Amino acid sequence: MYREKIRVLDCTIRDGGLINNHDFDRRFVREVYRALSTAGVDYMEMGYRNSKKLFSSKEYGLWKFCEDDEIRRAIDGIESKVKIAIMCDVGRVDMEEVKPKSESPVDMIRVAAYVKDVDKAIFMVNNFAEKGYETTINIMAISRDQGPELDEALHQIEEESKVDVVYIVDSFGALYQETTEHLVKLFKKILKTREVGFHGHNHQQLAFGNTIEAIIHDANYLDGTVYGIGRAAGNCPLELLIGFLKNPKFDIRPILDLISKEFIPLREKIEWGYIIPYAISGMMNEHPKAAMALRNSTKKEDYREFYEGLLNIGMD
Amino acid sequence: MYREKIRVLDCTIRDGGLINNHDFDRRFVREVYRALSTAGVDYMEMGYRNSKKLFSSKEYGLWKFCEDDEIRRAIDGIESKVKIAIMCDVGRVDMEEVKPKSESPVDMIRVAAYVKDVDKAIFMVNNFAEKGYETTINIMAISRDQGPELDEALHQIEEESKVDVVYIVDSFGALYQETTEHLVKLFKKILKTREVGFHGHNHQQLAFGNTIEAIIHDANYLDGTVYGIGRAAGNCPLELLIGFLKNPKFDIRPILDLISKEFIPLREKIEWGYIIPYAISGMMNEHPKAAMALRNSTKKEDYREFYEGLLNIGMD
Repeated sequence: MYREKIRVLDCTIRDGGLINNHDFDRRFVREVYRALSTAGVDYMEMGYRNSKKLFSSKEYGLWKFCEDDEIRRAIDGIESKVKIAIMCDVGRVDMEEVKPKSESPVDMIRVAAYVKDVDKAIFMVNNFAEKGYETTINIMAISRDQGPELDEALHQIEEESKVDVVYIVDSFGALYQETTEHLVKLFKKILKTREVGFHGHNHQQLAFGNTIEAIIHDANYLDGTVYGIGRAAGNCPLELLIGFLKNPKFDIRPILDLISKEFIPLREKIEWGYIIPYAISGMMNEHPKAAMALRNSTKKEDYREFYEGLLNIGMD
Repeated sequence: MYREKIRVLDCTIRDGGLINNHDFDRRFVREVYRALSTAGVDYMEMGYRNSKKLFSSKEYGLWKFCEDDEIRRAIDGIESKVKIAIMCDVGRVDMEEVKPKSESPVDMIRVAAYVKDVDKAIFMVNNFAEKGYETTINIMAISRDQGPELDEALHQIEEESKVDVVYIVDSFGALYQETTEHLVKLFKKILKTREVGFHGHNHQQLAFGNTIEAIIHDANYLDGTVYGIGRAAGNCPLELLIGFLKNPKFDIRPILDLISKEFIPLREKIEWGYIIPYAISGMMNEHPKAAMALRNSTKKEDYREFYEGLLNIGMD
């Protein structure tokens, strides 16, 4: 028996964009949108809405900016019920550039923030909510931020914000089932009038398992990406999530086609998935950036040295 | 705080042997043994003890037979506390050829059986136990066999056998956390005087997550393989399991070295891991043999056709 409230959000282009400077071509993005539409996925996150005053469009692809006109062009002519989401980082968006919902193809704006930035995130989501958007706050790096500051931030969100959904984001791929259970219960307890979401990272092959754990404890907004694409080890594979969920509206077949045709060739060109330095980062609750640098070096398979280097950082 | 009773069993050579006809060379097996010894792993499973009357040593490598002398040669001169395990399938071993423990380098014999073969498995483990070996019964394909026959088999094992450990084997990679929890609790309830083990398969990237789930509910014998090698999608990666367990006797570094030096090159030659047809088999609770055949065909990336084919079988 399925839970009607569950929503699946695909962030293939957004999180996948972190490994190719958001430089997916328009055809590719259309193919993803088309497949998600047929598969019955609820939301598609297209990328980040960053200000062009802060980032150069020569250095980054279209999906670093997600301009309304580009989104319109990507989805034009494809029959779909998929809602469009974009992500904003605290401090990187020009709020004035975000038009009212009635003038935009975007349905949902997700604000990514660390616990320490919760005031800024609340300011942003309230602004977006007043403009008519669905909103989320995605609390990043939560495996490092589980102290009383987190409780306080959640209380503040519950009391001061108009946000619809608050996400647990396992940026470091460091959560296990027990920590996931603990966090979802904590979020549900404090955020009495909001939905809880879960965004896993797959450093320790636990993104899907932790997503199931989050479902068990009543998180209703679930992120996935096609073939698990995403920064470092990537995310919860959308195909596994759809295979698990019981709602008959989901159809895995368009996603299977998309992987066959687009993602198998893509994986030959860019790297994500189960790779030992990312696993080590996850075990040690570290940001994957050191591992990402290692994978771009001549020492990419020198796991022991990498591990001992992280151990030493921990002891400094 | 760690649980002293937990035992880690590496089945790299045994389950990995299922994808290369058990044809690892002696040097490779020695390197695995050496690394496991330094890493503090409790058991190493070398392969199957099959009768040479049933299988040709021209078609299969040394580890299909695991003769005592070959095992001695593999471990000779390496300082180690690792116990040696071998596996026997019901009906494929010549019981007379199994010498008493006092004359063998083997410490543990694991009998792999389906629920329907439980009488044969009990007969075998009792024989091996009388010869002085530690024994296990590994109940295969358990995701298909969860009816009253399973309860009856477990009662019979508890009442009639001398076995030390009974394993839940997720041959099809079809278990989720909730089914894993259910099974471990069922095993613990009926097998009051035995230990419970867990052997995961990684078709849906849940081998490690389900192993953690089994630990939470008091399974103490845990299987893993280096870099997750094993049939189809492979097994629970040993490096993740060791990274998770808290017992200070474990050291992940020799395993990291082994992956760098031996398993990265090996993975270029033989295939295992997260591959969509195996994921589909897991979702549909099917043996991976159809997916393995697909991967050896020209249609290896035709996932939709494969999926629809399995759907049709299910409806026949």
